[in-house]
Amino acid sequence: MSKFLLEKYKNMVAYIPGEQPKDRAYIKLNANETSMKPSPKVLEVLKSSRMNGLGHYADPDAKELRTAIAELNDVAMNQVFVGNGSDEVLGFLFLAYFNEQSKICYPDITYGFYQVFAKTFGINGKQIPLKEDFTVDVDAYVKTNRHVILANPNAPTGYYLPVSEIERIVVSNPNRLVVIDEAYIDYGNESCIPLTKKYDNLIVVHTMSKSKNLAGAHIGYCIASEKLIEDLNGIKYSFNPYSMNDITIAIGTAAIKDTAYYKKCIQEIINNREYTKCELERYGFTVLDSATNFIFVTHPNLHAREYNAKLREHGILARYFDSERIQNYLRITIGTRQEMEQVIMVTSLILEELVA
Amino acid sequence: MSKFLLEKYKNMVAYIPGEQPKDRAYIKLNANETSMKPSPKVLEVLKSSRMNGLGHYADPDAKELRTAIAELNDVAMNQVFVGNGSDEVLGFLFLAYFNEQSKICYPDITYGFYQVFAKTFGINGKQIPLKEDFTVDVDAYVKTNRHVILANPNAPTGYYLPVSEIERIVVSNPNRLVVIDEAYIDYGNESCIPLTKKYDNLIVVHTMSKSKNLAGAHIGYCIASEKLIEDLNGIKYSFNPYSMNDITIAIGTAAIKDTAYYKKCIQEIINNREYTKCELERYGFTVLDSATNFIFVTHPNLHAREYNAKLREHGILARYFDSERIQNYLRITIGTRQEMEQVIMVTSLILEELVA
Repeated sequence: MSKFLLEKYKNMVAYIPGEQPKDRAYIKLNANETSMKPSPKVLEVLKSSRMNGLGHYADPDAKELRTAIAELNDVAMNQVFVGNGSDEVLGFLFLAYFNEQSKICYPDITYGFYQVFAKTFGINGKQIPLKEDFTVDVDAYVKTNRHVILANPNAPTGYYLPVSEIERIVVSNPNRLVVIDEAYIDYGNESCIPLTKKYDNLIVVHTMSKSKNLAGAHIGYCIASEKLIEDLNGIKYSFNPYSMNDITIAIGTAAIKDTAYYKKCIQEIINNREYTKCELERYGFTVLDSATNFIFVTHPNLHAREYNAKLREHGILARYFDSERIQNYLRITIGTRQEMEQVIMVTSLILEELVA
Repeated sequence: MSKFLLEKYKNMVAYIPGEQPKDRAYIKLNANETSMKPSPKVLEVLKSSRMNGLGHYADPDAKELRTAIAELNDVAMNQVFVGNGSDEVLGFLFLAYFNEQSKICYPDITYGFYQVFAKTFGINGKQIPLKEDFTVDVDAYVKTNRHVILANPNAPTGYYLPVSEIERIVVSNPNRLVVIDEAYIDYGNESCIPLTKKYDNLIVVHTMSKSKNLAGAHIGYCIASEKLIEDLNGIKYSFNPYSMNDITIAIGTAAIKDTAYYKKCIQEIINNREYTKCELERYGFTVLDSATNFIFVTHPNLHAREYNAKLREHGILARYFDSERIQNYLRITIGTRQEMEQVIMVTSLILEELVA
């Protein structure tokens, strides 16, 4: 840390992303990514003559991508803001709306980045505990007047709140913002995007890193009322006008349009999720009902920390959170069928060793 | 603007990038871009099997790209910070070091983004006038204790300050930061990057949007002491850990390594610049000595505003700044030889019409 860094960052605790070790070839099930390929249309764009024109700046408004997203979600283009991953979208959103005087809240068990953000920017952030059964305590969000950040489905639990419950929070106080992070919405859930036409205090954040198989391209967006989007564009134009480059605009558009391909991929993930859940339950695991591309599991005789270490020894990376309420749970991303069969096979070996 | 936007942004004036009109095919010489292709190595990477793996997150440390940049500039990898364009690098830098209590300064005539930034984030920004001849008043920067932001070469003037002059500013006060934006350094000038090994208050910012023919990929970086880079990475990890996606890491690395290709492109731009300068002078223009990929020109009988409008009618876009001291100057990007021949031909027509 240099002597020049602003005082307010002295307590900065950076977010620790899922590790990317290179010491051997791992089956990576620790960051809710996928080894499935992007849409063939995405790969075509990367090979197209458009790339010869990279000497020119991209459209700073990213209209092509925003139009495609708007059509997919049945909203106006001016209701769409795009960024380099949903993290950047959240970043602009935090910059625009929250400062040292702001009060926000989010669950105690959720995507760790909200807390990192709040700490970095000196925002008064309160963790509202999930209920005993790890579901979101909707009444607590209705009662508080703090701005709300909720991941829905939540991570790492995988639980989904129906749109009517989100709406209860949104209507309860029109003078605070409600940010719903729908990173995992595509795995069989209903989005609350239609509510953005009715309420001007709701922002719905999406990512292409999960269901579009594009974590490595890191494209995210949010949908909200036109006024909120105008704010975000204002901040973006003051911070990084060309934040989306022409490659991400082009491949993002291609991905958004290829719904048929991704529908197939998503169905495969859902099938593999149910297969994995079923198999692990046969081995005595409790597997939380997941509405996402990961599962959150616990076992009566095998501590999650040990399970994680053993999986790693066998070349499989999962995500362990060393946090009080969930220290005996492990989050495992759902990969291809072959990858999940490997998980089951290795798990049975680990359990056998335990008995021996 | 929504009711939720923080009070401090109410006076926000967004940066206006060079326009990207699509009503016809223009020769675009208004944003210091290029119609030259990126390196063939860049295009190869985009077609390679690496792109099949976009389902996985990129290395959040972007080590591959930072290593290539470090080797090119003969510094340590930990002295390199990368971002989505030099604007984003400047953005993180402003977030890290400047707030409402900070005092910064920059020339009255320079890249408009510094002023936009200062206004957006409520930083006390002072414009120090260029001298009568449009050169930087180095003594004024030595005397002030404000943090310094200087573009070198400067835009839109095109003038370059030698490293010894930069060093004078840097040593004059080790307790303030000096940020040197070397966006146009590659067009025949000496970089002050070596000074970063000697001084811990210097940050040198580079972009691949100009001399690497990659405006559309929007990749930038800065080089400074390891402690300053540690600060910037901390902010980045709290704001957008995966800010560089795997595509930009891959093509940025390929571009940095293909020095032979870009050396040729740069030489072509320099040749075209001298050709254009020479031709315009023959037509009575005064052309400031440029150390960049653009020229700044004025004519005794043709007002710059009119010259700009006429060029546009003929399908050529240049950049006019409606600002007091430079309102009779026009900035023209140096393109390919064919594009510059067209500029000269059209200019001669415009001047003929004037006489008629």
